[in-house]
Amino acid sequence: MIIKENVKAQLQERNKNQGRLLVSCPDKPGIVSVLSTFLHNQGANIIESSQYTSNPENGIFFIRIEFRCENLIERAQEIEEAFEAIASVHEMDYRFAYGNQVKRSAIYVSKETHCLVELLWEWQTGDLNTDIVVVISNHEEARYMVESLGIPFYYIPANKDIREQVEAEQIELMKKYDVDLLILARYMQILTPNFVSHFENRIINIHHSFLPAFIGAGPYERAYDRGVKLIGATSHYVTNDLDEGPIIEQDVERVDHRDRVADLKKIGSLIERRVLTKAVKWHLEDRIIVKKNKTIVFH
Amino acid sequence: MIIKENVKAQLQERNKNQGRLLVSCPDKPGIVSVLSTFLHNQGANIIESSQYTSNPENGIFFIRIEFRCENLIERAQEIEEAFEAIASVHEMDYRFAYGNQVKRSAIYVSKETHCLVELLWEWQTGDLNTDIVVVISNHEEARYMVESLGIPFYYIPANKDIREQVEAEQIELMKKYDVDLLILARYMQILTPNFVSHFENRIINIHHSFLPAFIGAGPYERAYDRGVKLIGATSHYVTNDLDEGPIIEQDVERVDHRDRVADLKKIGSLIERRVLTKAVKWHLEDRIIVKKNKTIVFH
Amino acid sequence: MIIKENVKAQLQERNKNQGRLLVSCPDKPGIVSVLSTFLHNQGANIIESSQYTSNPENGIFFIRIEFRCENLIERAQEIEEAFEAIASVHEMDYRFAYGNQVKRSAIYVSKETHCLVELLWEWQTGDLNTDIVVVISNHEEARYMVESLGIPFYYIPANKDIREQVEAEQIELMKKYDVDLLILARYMQILTPNFVSHFENRIINIHHSFLPAFIGAGPYERAYDRGVKLIGATSHYVTNDLDEGPIIEQDVERVDHRDRVADLKKIGSLIERRVLTKAVKWHLEDRIIVKKNKTIVFH
Amino acid sequence: MIIKENVKAQLQERNKNQGRLLVSCPDKPGIVSVLSTFLHNQGANIIESSQYTSNPENGIFFIRIEFRCENLIERAQEIEEAFEAIASVHEMDYRFAYGNQVKRSAIYVSKETHCLVELLWEWQTGDLNTDIVVVISNHEEARYMVESLGIPFYYIPANKDIREQVEAEQIELMKKYDVDLLILARYMQILTPNFVSHFENRIINIHHSFLPAFIGAGPYERAYDRGVKLIGATSHYVTNDLDEGPIIEQDVERVDHRDRVADLKKIGSLIERRVLTKAVKWHLEDRIIVKKNKTIVFH
Repeated sequence: MIIKENVKAQLQERNKNQGRLLVSCPDKPGIVSVLSTFLHNQGANIIESSQYTSNPENGIFFIRIEFRCENLIERAQEIEEAFEAIASVHEMDYRFAYGNQVKRSAIYVSKETHCLVELLWEWQTGDLNTDIVVVISNHEEARYMVESLGIPFYYIPANKDIREQVEAEQIELMKKYDVDLLILARYMQILTPNFVSHFENRIINIHHSFLPAFIGAGPYERAYDRGVKLIGATSHYVTNDLDEGPIIEQDVERVDHRDRVADLKKIGSLIERRVLTKAVKWHLEDRIIVKKNKTIVFH
Repeated sequence: MIIKENVKAQLQERNKNQGRLLVSCPDKPGIVSVLSTFLHNQGANIIESSQYTSNPENGIFFIRIEFRCENLIERAQEIEEAFEAIASVHEMDYRFAYGNQVKRSAIYVSKETHCLVELLWEWQTGDLNTDIVVVISNHEEARYMVESLGIPFYYIPANKDIREQVEAEQIELMKKYDVDLLILARYMQILTPNFVSHFENRIINIHHSFLPAFIGAGPYERAYDRGVKLIGATSHYVTNDLDEGPIIEQDVERVDHRDRVADLKKIGSLIERRVLTKAVKWHLEDRIIVKKNKTIVFH
Repeated sequence: MIIKENVKAQLQERNKNQGRLLVSCPDKPGIVSVLSTFLHNQGANIIESSQYTSNPENGIFFIRIEFRCENLIERAQEIEEAFEAIASVHEMDYRFAYGNQVKRSAIYVSKETHCLVELLWEWQTGDLNTDIVVVISNHEEARYMVESLGIPFYYIPANKDIREQVEAEQIELMKKYDVDLLILARYMQILTPNFVSHFENRIINIHHSFLPAFIGAGPYERAYDRGVKLIGATSHYVTNDLDEGPIIEQDVERVDHRDRVADLKKIGSLIERRVLTKAVKWHLEDRIIVKKNKTIVFH
Repeated sequence: MIIKENVKAQLQERNKNQGRLLVSCPDKPGIVSVLSTFLHNQGANIIESSQYTSNPENGIFFIRIEFRCENLIERAQEIEEAFEAIASVHEMDYRFAYGNQVKRSAIYVSKETHCLVELLWEWQTGDLNTDIVVVISNHEEARYMVESLGIPFYYIPANKDIREQVEAEQIELMKKYDVDLLILARYMQILTPNFVSHFENRIINIHHSFLPAFIGAGPYERAYDRGVKLIGATSHYVTNDLDEGPIIEQDVERVDHRDRVADLKKIGSLIERRVLTKAVKWHLEDRIIVKKNKTIVFH
C-alpha cells in the first residue's frame, strides 16, 4: 500500500490551496467582471483562466478559472455559499473543484494491458492527478502488476449473457470505493444504458479508431480492408449510443500498404495509450466541459 | 503559350533516358533475379527499386523499378518486345513508362480554387511532372489564372439534370486533348458509372474528410457537429462507389472547440491542397499500383 | 488597384467594432477584475480572453482581451483616456488595437517567391488581416505578380557593399507607405542594427531551419551534411543577433537519406510558407507579446 | 528467469529461417541481378528488398535484402562461403544476419527510467527482437524492475573522476555477456574514446534535444531559455564527438510559452522513449547502414 498512499499524499499536499471554478451561462456583458471580482473579494488569486463563447450573438459563455487561496480547505464552504447568489442571478451552471480532493478513479481493463500500463506509470511518477482506488477486469492478466502497487484488483468475468448481473456487481464496487471517474482502458465490453446512467460524463473510453470512422467492433481489421493511410484512436465520454459520445481527444499515425492487421494493432496501441492518458489527465484537471454531444477542452 | 511549352520541354529533356517498369505477378522465388537480369542485359541501370509481397505464402509480388538507359526513346520498342516473353512465362501484369512521355493531365474545378492554385504553382516550378493540357470548370472563377498560363479553359455548366450531356461533352474533350489523368480539384459534381468507366484508375479526387468518416456531402459541417478534434482530407481514385475508391493519401490537422465551420473549411483547404498534390505527384511518377480496392504506393 | 482596395475595405467593415487590449504588469490579485470591470463599464463585451502569469510568485501577468463595442471607432479615444488612470496605478504596459485600423505591411522578397505567393494568396482570400502596401525586392522576379494585384513594387538591388545606402532608401519607403509590419519572406539580406532599431518587434523573418540548429547561411546544405531526419523552419522577430530573435512559430517535416539538398529545399519551402504565414497572422491579430527574448502567443 | 528465456526462445523460433543480407559497393549496372540470382540459386526467396544509390554517377550502391530459406541455420556457412567470391569481384562490404541469432543487448541507465521501462515493455511483448542480457546503472533505482524480469542488474557508481576504472569494469561485463548492442537509455555519463572504440556503431544513445540544437548538457533548460516552439529528441550512434554521431531517428512535440522546464522534461520523456525504441528496433532488424557520419535506414 506504500506506493498508493504516497502518491495520494503528495498530490494532496502539492495542490492543497489550489481551486478551480467552471461556469457556463447565457452570455452577456460583464460576466468576467462579476466572476473575477467575486474571487478577488474572497482572497483568491486567478492563476489561469480560459473562456469561450459559443456564439457572439446570444451564445453560451463558458469559463474555467484556476485560482489559489490561502487555507482553501477551510474556506471552501464559505466561498461556495457566497457564490450561490451570483450563480442564481446569472443562471450559471457551475462547479468548484479543490486540489486536496484528489479524484478517485477505477480502471476497467480486459486482456490487453498497454493502456493500463501507461496509466499506472503516469500515476506512479505523480503525473496523473488521481487516486486509483480499484482495477476491474474480466481477465486475470493484470492482477499481479496492479496488486504489487497496492491497488485492489477484482476479477469479474463478463459476457453479454450475464451483463446485468456483472454490472450490478460493478456498480456496488463503484459505490464501495466511492469512485469519481471510470476509465475504460480497452475494456471491450458494451455497457447497458442503466450502467451508463449512473455515471454521466464520468466514464471515459478509448476507441481504437479515428471516430466516426470504424464505429463498433474490429476497427483495425476494417481499416486494413479499407486501405487507409492513417490509423487513429479516440477518447470519449461514454453515452448510450455506442462510440457516439462526446469526443475528448484523437490522434493518428501514418501506416502504409506493408502494414498488416497485426502491425496496425501494434502502432494503434501506442496511439491509444497516449490519447487515453491525455483525456484522463484533462478530466482530472477539470479542463473539460460537455456541451450537448461535444466537449470544450480548456488547455 | 510560352510557360506551358517551356515546362513540358524541360520535363522531357530532364527525364528523357529515364524509364519505369511496374510489375505484379504471383510470387515465387527468382522473380527479382529475372527482372534485374533482363534490364541489365538491355543495358539499363536500376537506380531505384521497391518491392512488396502481399503474403509470404502464395502472395502477389509487386515491384516498381526506375532505370536509366542510353537512347531510351529509340530503344523502348525493342525492350518491350523482348520483355513480352518473360512476362508471359511468369504471368506478369506490367507496364513501362518513359520520361519523355510526359503524362497529359486535365484539371476539373468548381468555385473553390485553392487546389487548382497549388497544382498550377507546383507545375510552374517544374515540380509536377505533367503537361496540364486543359482545365474544365462549371464556373468562370478560374478562367483568368488558367488562360494566363497558356492553358485552355472550358466553362461547362453542370448539374444533375444535365449530367449525361455534360459528361458527353467532357469525354469528347478528354479525347481531343488525349488526356491521361483527370484531376478533380474540388470539382463537386458526381460522375456517372459511364464516365468513370472511360478512365479506370485515372481519375484522382480529393475528398474533404478523413475517409471513411463523413462520406458524401457537407463533411466539414458534419465534422463540426460531431465535435472531432482532427479534420482531414483524402485523395483517392474514383470508382462507382461514392468516396469508396482506393485511397492514395490522407492527412489531418488539429482543430478545437473554438473552430467554427468556416474555420474547419479554411484549415481543411490547406490539407486538401497538399494531399491532392502528393497523390497526383505519385501517380505521375508511376509510384502507385491499385490492387483490388487498395493502393500500393512505392515512396 | 481594385483587388487591393477591396480587400482593405472588406477587412475594415468586418472588424469595425472589434477591439483588442494587451496588457502586461506585475502580477497581483484582482487584475482580471479591474480590467473586466473597466471594459464592462465602457460598454464593451469581452468575446475572447487569454492570460498567462510567468510565475506564481512575483511573476509578470499578461493578458490579451478581444472585445466588441458599439461605435468603437468614435469611442476609442475616450476609452483610452479613461484607461490611462488604471494603467498608471497598476504599472501596466499596454496597447489597444482596433479592427478598423488595418495594419499596413511591407513584404521583402528575393528570388524565391514561394512565401510571397502564399502571403498574397491568403491576403486575396481575406484570410490575412492586413493591407499589403508595398513589396520590395533585390530581384525583378516578383514584379509582375505583385503589380497585377495593384500593389506597388520596388526593385532595389542589394548587397553588403551598398547596405547602408539601400537601407536608407528602404527606410524612406517605409515612412512613405507608413508601414506597421515588415515581413521578410526569404529576403536573404542581413540588416544592420540601425535598420532594425527603426522597427523593434515589427520585422518578422522566416529562417529556413529549425532554430537554433543551423543558424546562418546554407541551412539545408548543413542539414544534409549532418544527416538529420527532420527539417524545419522558424519564424521570428528580427533583432541585432542574427537568427537569435524571439521565436514566433516553428514546424518540421520528415526527410530521409534519399533526400538530396534540392529535395530538402523543396520540402522546406512548404514548411517555410506555412510557418511564416501563421506568424504573420498572429502578429496581425495582436496575439503576440514579446517578453525578453521570447514570445507569448495567445492562440 | 522464465520471462527472459521465454522471450528469447519465441524470437528464435519465429525467425529461424529468416536471413538478411546488407551490401554496399561501388555502383555499376547489374548488381541487383548478381545478388538476386545468387540468392535464388541458394534456394532463398527474397521477401523484402530496399536499395539506395548515393549518386547516379559513380555513387555507392546500398541494399538490404530480407530472405527466407529452408534450413537456414544449417545452410548459413555454405551460403556465406559461396558469397565470398561475388563480394570479392564487386568490392562489396557486406554482412549476413540470421533470425535465430538473436542479438544480445545491454542497457545502460541512470536515475531516470522512462526509456528503460519502454524498452522492457516492448521486449516483454515480443516486439523488440533481442535478448536483454544485462542492465548497468550508476544508480539503484532500476534494480527491482530489472531483476524481477530475470535480467542481471549491475550497480556501478560512476563519475568523471573514476571514469577509466568504471569503463574497464563495464568492458569486462560486455565481454562476459557477449554483448552485441549497447543501449544508452538516458545514461548521462560521457564515454571515453577508448570505450567507444570497442563498440563502433554498436552504441545507441538518446539525446534529449533535436540535434544539432542544444548539444551537450541541459538541453531542456536551454530550449526553455531560447523559447522554442517544438522540443525534440535524437537517437544516434555514439562516436568520439559528443552528440555528433550518425543520427538514426528524431522526433518533436509542440510546446508553448506556458510550459516550464519541468513540463518540457515531461513532454520530452515521451519523445525520448519512442525515438530510442524505434532506433533500437531498426538496429536489431539490421535496417541501418552507417555511411560516413550519416545513416541509411531502410524502412
